[in-house]
Amino acid sequence: MSDKQIPYKIYLEESELPKAWYNLRADMNNKPAPLLNPETHKPMTASDLSGIFCDELIAQELDDTTHYFDIPKEILDFYKMYRPAPLVRAYCLEEKLQTPAKIYYKFEGNNTSGSHKLNSAIAQAYYAKKQGLKGVTTETGAGQWGTALSMACSYLGLDCNVYMVKVSYEQKPFRREVMRTYGASVTPSPSMETEVGRKILAEYPGTTGSLGCAISEAVEKAGSNEGYRYVLGSVLNQVMLHQSVIGLETKAAMDKYGIKPDIIIGCAGGGSNLGGLISPFMGEKLRGEADYRFIAVEPASCPSLTRGKYAYDFCDTGKVCPLSKMYTLGSSYIPAPNHAGGLRYHGMNSTLSQLYADGYMEATTVTQTEVFKAATEFARVEGILPAPESSHAIKAAIDEALKCKETGEEKTILFGLTGTGYFDMVAYQKFNDGQMENYIPTDAEIQASLDKLPKID
Amino acid sequence: MSDKQIPYKIYLEESELPKAWYNLRADMNNKPAPLLNPETHKPMTASDLSGIFCDELIAQELDDTTHYFDIPKEILDFYKMYRPAPLVRAYCLEEKLQTPAKIYYKFEGNNTSGSHKLNSAIAQAYYAKKQGLKGVTTETGAGQWGTALSMACSYLGLDCNVYMVKVSYEQKPFRREVMRTYGASVTPSPSMETEVGRKILAEYPGTTGSLGCAISEAVEKAGSNEGYRYVLGSVLNQVMLHQSVIGLETKAAMDKYGIKPDIIIGCAGGGSNLGGLISPFMGEKLRGEADYRFIAVEPASCPSLTRGKYAYDFCDTGKVCPLSKMYTLGSSYIPAPNHAGGLRYHGMNSTLSQLYADGYMEATTVTQTEVFKAATEFARVEGILPAPESSHAIKAAIDEALKCKETGEEKTILFGLTGTGYFDMVAYQKFNDGQMENYIPTDAEIQASLDKLPKID
Repeated sequence: MSDKQIPYKIYLEESELPKAWYNLRADMNNKPAPLLNPETHKPMTASDLSGIFCDELIAQELDDTTHYFDIPKEILDFYKMYRPAPLVRAYCLEEKLQTPAKIYYKFEGNNTSGSHKLNSAIAQAYYAKKQGLKGVTTETGAGQWGTALSMACSYLGLDCNVYMVKVSYEQKPFRREVMRTYGASVTPSPSMETEVGRKILAEYPGTTGSLGCAISEAVEKAGSNEGYRYVLGSVLNQVMLHQSVIGLETKAAMDKYGIKPDIIIGCAGGGSNLGGLISPFMGEKLRGEADYRFIAVEPASCPSLTRGKYAYDFCDTGKVCPLSKMYTLGSSYIPAPNHAGGLRYHGMNSTLSQLYADGYMEATTVTQTEVFKAATEFARVEGILPAPESSHAIKAAIDEALKCKETGEEKTILFGLTGTGYFDMVAYQKFNDGQMENYIPTDAEIQASLDKLPKID
Repeated sequence: MSDKQIPYKIYLEESELPKAWYNLRADMNNKPAPLLNPETHKPMTASDLSGIFCDELIAQELDDTTHYFDIPKEILDFYKMYRPAPLVRAYCLEEKLQTPAKIYYKFEGNNTSGSHKLNSAIAQAYYAKKQGLKGVTTETGAGQWGTALSMACSYLGLDCNVYMVKVSYEQKPFRREVMRTYGASVTPSPSMETEVGRKILAEYPGTTGSLGCAISEAVEKAGSNEGYRYVLGSVLNQVMLHQSVIGLETKAAMDKYGIKPDIIIGCAGGGSNLGGLISPFMGEKLRGEADYRFIAVEPASCPSLTRGKYAYDFCDTGKVCPLSKMYTLGSSYIPAPNHAGGLRYHGMNSTLSQLYADGYMEATTVTQTEVFKAATEFARVEGILPAPESSHAIKAAIDEALKCKETGEEKTILFGLTGTGYFDMVAYQKFNDGQMENYIPTDAEIQASLDKLPKID
């Protein structure tokens, strides 16, 4: 099909939308290693997990053979609020770069939570509701996941308790207010509400909190309250399953117009967006039906794939969650305080980790000043003010497009634009004022954290 | 057509999009009164205006006979970034209200500026560029218009100077940073850059500024700089012309599916959104082809249509702009400081004023706590976090839907959802904390301001 017949923004028709999530693990010969019980070091069973997670989500988490899971009608109905997400041809960016490459991006930011996180939030809230639970607990850092979850819970009439890292709660009050507007209770962490919170406050009276501590509080709260479960917005394979809707829609839109991407790029924190975007394309690659280059883009300050170790580690700093085999910097690794660009997770989803270990995917790092420069360049020509996280992918896409300019190749580049940066203007301000700094950890720093990895036989 | 065949969200195809703006004045028997020169009190001529505004915009401003103006291709190309805007059936809100009414809203917030303002910003920036100008100047309060203009200027490579009311510049830094990210220069007003700014600062050293002062600075800067003109985001008839794209798209979408609204509701500040939304429907009413109820919704704290006087007045507090005949509270009227909901303009677009005077349109007021209650209710079921301005229309739409519930009538209600509230979380926080107060001016207060209206023979 000629370029002229392809709409500038592709919105699928309702009849063309995915009706089932795709479970990439089912097409892998080398399955991701199982989650381990943090005490016994034996593979986690459904009953081990049932006090923490909802039953159907546990089933999805542990299933590496079922290819497709039907999306419940209630979730499809909710999707209608903000899906389909458009697949956009970045004509203006191409012109700005004077590249022969064709650049597409899948934009997931057209909803109030401002990111792709809503895709899994509604799924997790739905299964909690279906199980007859009263509510869910979770943690949030800057607040993207907490916002998404509060929207989903509000829609379903489910109670939503968010533990928000205290420093974010105080310094980034706007996402907190979005959550409250959606009816969530938002507690600065550490709090006096939980045993672990009280213990940490007694030990470190002035602490401003950490994501690891907030996870521990949310897990304790779920475990100690009848009718509550804990939910998590990234890292888990259930999340990647829900997020496959990103890739399925993208692939359907591209197939409809006969577009085949050569390179697929996603930013990589815990892996929820990257995994979701690449899933159906990676499935084709695993089955030998097509070939693509996949590039995971990490912040230079938190480089789990590129500089971490492939090993069993705790998913949380508080070490209460199961052990996962993944590329990790060690659960005690914390990015430098000047890191403003999100993607601060120490590890990586286990499925993506296995694929990377097996050579199916590349990874690269970018510094945050490069990221904000790319974000600004993108905003000025494409209109959308991107989230810092998404801008990691923009930076890598621009680099690939500039390589095409040198070689004259007309490659088709696809990247995931996961969200908007409206709540990240403090970071933009730093960049605009020329006060943003980069941080690249030394090998010794990373090694110090890796030295604390749990010993698994 | 049955409801089942109507998509939940209607996006027009590219071929169905409006290619020309509709000039409602051409269909009016009673034309709006002409702008007057503030010194001579004679009708403004094109040459009177040419030092302030761009030539083609002046032609649009003064033309009340041409029915349609072709939308230039460059603007249509820009529209593709964020248009068509979806027309959404508010199924979840209907269910929540248990109303037999069918509620539709036209959502204009799906762009980084977060509102419909971008429709006129790109048009005004385009004509400035076409005239070979270097840049434009404008003022902004909370920053919606300034953001939209900076996006448009960045796209066209035009310099953009925004005078931002000092108190907003300091207390609402995030929109300022969005503007800077798009390359605009943002100056807190009053500033030392202009004569009027220096004069005001000398007289009131600690002043935090006002919209009127910022307008005066922007106009002075445009007049004193070669290659610059002043642009304005509301009130003017050229703005209403550009905003007719909202109504034209809405009507095309409704006609396509055989939907006929009974009631059309818009929030009303200067009138840019209300005028744009109702234009093609009002045209039908004026030509006797169809009938609709139109409702303008004002804040109780700034009730120009419902409690103002239909008279010639200054468009700006600084009294440097032309006189316009309109419903006005007097150019010295300033809403109470606790007013958080936008729509703070003292007057109303002259076309809408004439139509209201002639009985073609109704108007109503709502208090801001009612507005934020409606906003929260809407957000929780429909997902979108609405701008306070838009939420005035939501409140009125809910009220009409509840009347239908009482009477059992299946009316079709259409309202304009002009934008998102991401940069208004301070106001939401006040509401969430139960600390938002209402203010309704006394008759004496309004009269005191009306007493200062200019005397026109």
